[in-house]
Amino acid sequence: MMAKDAIRFEVTHQKTGQSGWHARVGRVTTAHGSFDTPAFMPVATAAAMKGLTPTQVRTTGSQCILNNAFHLLLRPGAERIAALGGVHKFMRWEGPILTDSGGFQAFSMAQINRVDEDGVTFQSFIDGKVVHLGPESSMAVQEALGADIAMAFDDCPPAGGAIPESMARERTMQAKDRTLRWLARCIAAHRRPDQALFGIVQGGTDLAMRSASVTETCAFDLAGYAIGGVAVGEGTAAIEQVVRHTAPLLPLDRPRYLMGVGYPRDIAMAVESGVDMFDCVLPTRNGRNGMAFTQAGAIRLRNAIHSDDEAPIERECDCEACAGGFSRAYLRHLFIAGEMLGPTLVSLHNIRLFQRLLLDIRRAIEEDTWLQFRRSWPCTNQVQSGSLDLNGVSDD
Amino acid sequence: MMAKDAIRFEVTHQKTGQSGWHARVGRVTTAHGSFDTPAFMPVATAAAMKGLTPTQVRTTGSQCILNNAFHLLLRPGAERIAALGGVHKFMRWEGPILTDSGGFQAFSMAQINRVDEDGVTFQSFIDGKVVHLGPESSMAVQEALGADIAMAFDDCPPAGGAIPESMARERTMQAKDRTLRWLARCIAAHRRPDQALFGIVQGGTDLAMRSASVTETCAFDLAGYAIGGVAVGEGTAAIEQVVRHTAPLLPLDRPRYLMGVGYPRDIAMAVESGVDMFDCVLPTRNGRNGMAFTQAGAIRLRNAIHSDDEAPIERECDCEACAGGFSRAYLRHLFIAGEMLGPTLVSLHNIRLFQRLLLDIRRAIEEDTWLQFRRSWPCTNQVQSGSLDLNGVSDD
Repeated sequence: MMAKDAIRFEVTHQKTGQSGWHARVGRVTTAHGSFDTPAFMPVATAAAMKGLTPTQVRTTGSQCILNNAFHLLLRPGAERIAALGGVHKFMRWEGPILTDSGGFQAFSMAQINRVDEDGVTFQSFIDGKVVHLGPESSMAVQEALGADIAMAFDDCPPAGGAIPESMARERTMQAKDRTLRWLARCIAAHRRPDQALFGIVQGGTDLAMRSASVTETCAFDLAGYAIGGVAVGEGTAAIEQVVRHTAPLLPLDRPRYLMGVGYPRDIAMAVESGVDMFDCVLPTRNGRNGMAFTQAGAIRLRNAIHSDDEAPIERECDCEACAGGFSRAYLRHLFIAGEMLGPTLVSLHNIRLFQRLLLDIRRAIEEDTWLQFRRSWPCTNQVQSGSLDLNGVSDD
Repeated sequence: MMAKDAIRFEVTHQKTGQSGWHARVGRVTTAHGSFDTPAFMPVATAAAMKGLTPTQVRTTGSQCILNNAFHLLLRPGAERIAALGGVHKFMRWEGPILTDSGGFQAFSMAQINRVDEDGVTFQSFIDGKVVHLGPESSMAVQEALGADIAMAFDDCPPAGGAIPESMARERTMQAKDRTLRWLARCIAAHRRPDQALFGIVQGGTDLAMRSASVTETCAFDLAGYAIGGVAVGEGTAAIEQVVRHTAPLLPLDRPRYLMGVGYPRDIAMAVESGVDMFDCVLPTRNGRNGMAFTQAGAIRLRNAIHSDDEAPIERECDCEACAGGFSRAYLRHLFIAGEMLGPTLVSLHNIRLFQRLLLDIRRAIEEDTWLQFRRSWPCTNQVQSGSLDLNGVSDD
């Protein structure tokens, strides 16, 4: 078996012919079970979904989750997790797991000593130790962790003014080309037959560069392809332009993964463009801060308006917080009093909200009721205040 | 119905005649269901068990829980909780609840402005507002909260050197006498027929004073009686002396509650003395700090010795952490990485450990196998390092 056969992807429903409409429903099958697409993967950065047990995560309907190789490499160490039987056993998640390559965090979060053709050398944020991460070591780390899907090690520069305008195009081009060279090295280094390897398309907000990157990346016959370098500071409109352009160029018979995105609006847009997989820290990170998502939009539970409100976050919701009858008044109390149970309950709700969104998305595609879906989920028509700027914080 | 009929207590098993042996098995029935005695009540200070959902608390086998009137009075306010339907509905705990009077915290935690015959005037630790708590207002607060069992407002001075030796006896006597006068006022003020009121015996470590307090307190025909002023800094040996002396003096046909105790050893000793109810923050507070209880004694999960240990906390344990297969290595990782899931899983284990202890205690009494029980729970024969000094922190 080769790595590209480690997973199986079937498209079970697709309506073609309509301009700009590329949405499809499918299923990805891994050594640890299947997940339905379009899929939302909540982020368990350090092999733990913050404040939630695996049992609780399962109740949200999440089928596949994401771990960060960068964090696990630094602590507790990939070899340690391998010796303990791999990350599924370590964190007691029996379903599919995807690991990112560590590149994004190494480039955006770490104290960088050197970036060159061999990768990135940085100082551990834990103990200051000098660590090198490159295509070969990222593959070794991800194989040691043993997730079902590994990501190629890519060069992902920040956008949105972090680099001077005059240099931005050159840096984007450099990142695209280097990502491609690293992809070849990742493929050469990758050994594990029960683990799929996804390539990553770069190119920033330059659509011609995105097209070139798709052609170059998809010349490698891989189990799946991701759109990287999105939601790194470039704003909602630019995300949409890149995704609507790039996603339809990717092979029809492989899963397409939009990394680190996003708000319900971004997800709905990307699904229309043919994206199959999403991950984002929003449900848990915002949940920990008392922001609850609803079909109608987000609410801030710390606000005094909720002090005496007997209503749950959302009457229609079947999550443990809403169906369990926890009132907004109680949830507000938990956040004001600094009780850990607040983050737990609102994270449970938010993840379930995202899974309900994806359930309704899959049903609307199958039943050809997309406009009704868009109307019943007003949040998918709202641009959030500010851009989806998760630059440097795509961990949770 | 009168408050003293709000609960029913049946002793279902008691073997008499043996010197120093007063252990019994029974059941307390409230408007919100029953709990078996001897019972351990985990502490949900601010109407939330730190890091655990009510569903998770139920899986530990906990039948009755404790809330702190002091904290809920200050935030979010007792009237607010009453308007929201009472504390059971507020926190979604459908089983029995006991509230303490707020006195202990007001005396030990608060910035006190004045203590007099009317109670204690202190500054809120939240907003500095001046608050008065006395027998009448404590009853009003506890009736608004609506727990199944309310505690009389008592005067509970610290022990263990907090007061100069020369004044300690006088202060203990004052507290005992004042507690009795306040008890009469609590009984006069208490209205709620579906809520039981327990009186509290004081007297410090002076056994004659304890005897007098029992006689005086039990002259009031109440639903239950508590031993207060224990585990306030006086050390393990003194706790044992007071409990072994005091508990057997209390009426046979009423539940006996030892407030704020304790370690497994203290619980086993107190059960022998005829105590029926316990509460303590140890399982959750220590659990949050990575200390896991086992039948053999406590372990510190942050220790490096656990880094590669595939074993669960305790092989025999049926809690979600142990039966769920979470290794000590993983739990250590969670604490080292500051993941909320660590406190959650170890609190779940620790509460379950205490409930397993109480299950085995009840079985050993029923089956007359106490010595075997003591041997199979080595931790009940260990004096913990340091005294059970929870002075000022009997909240969680």
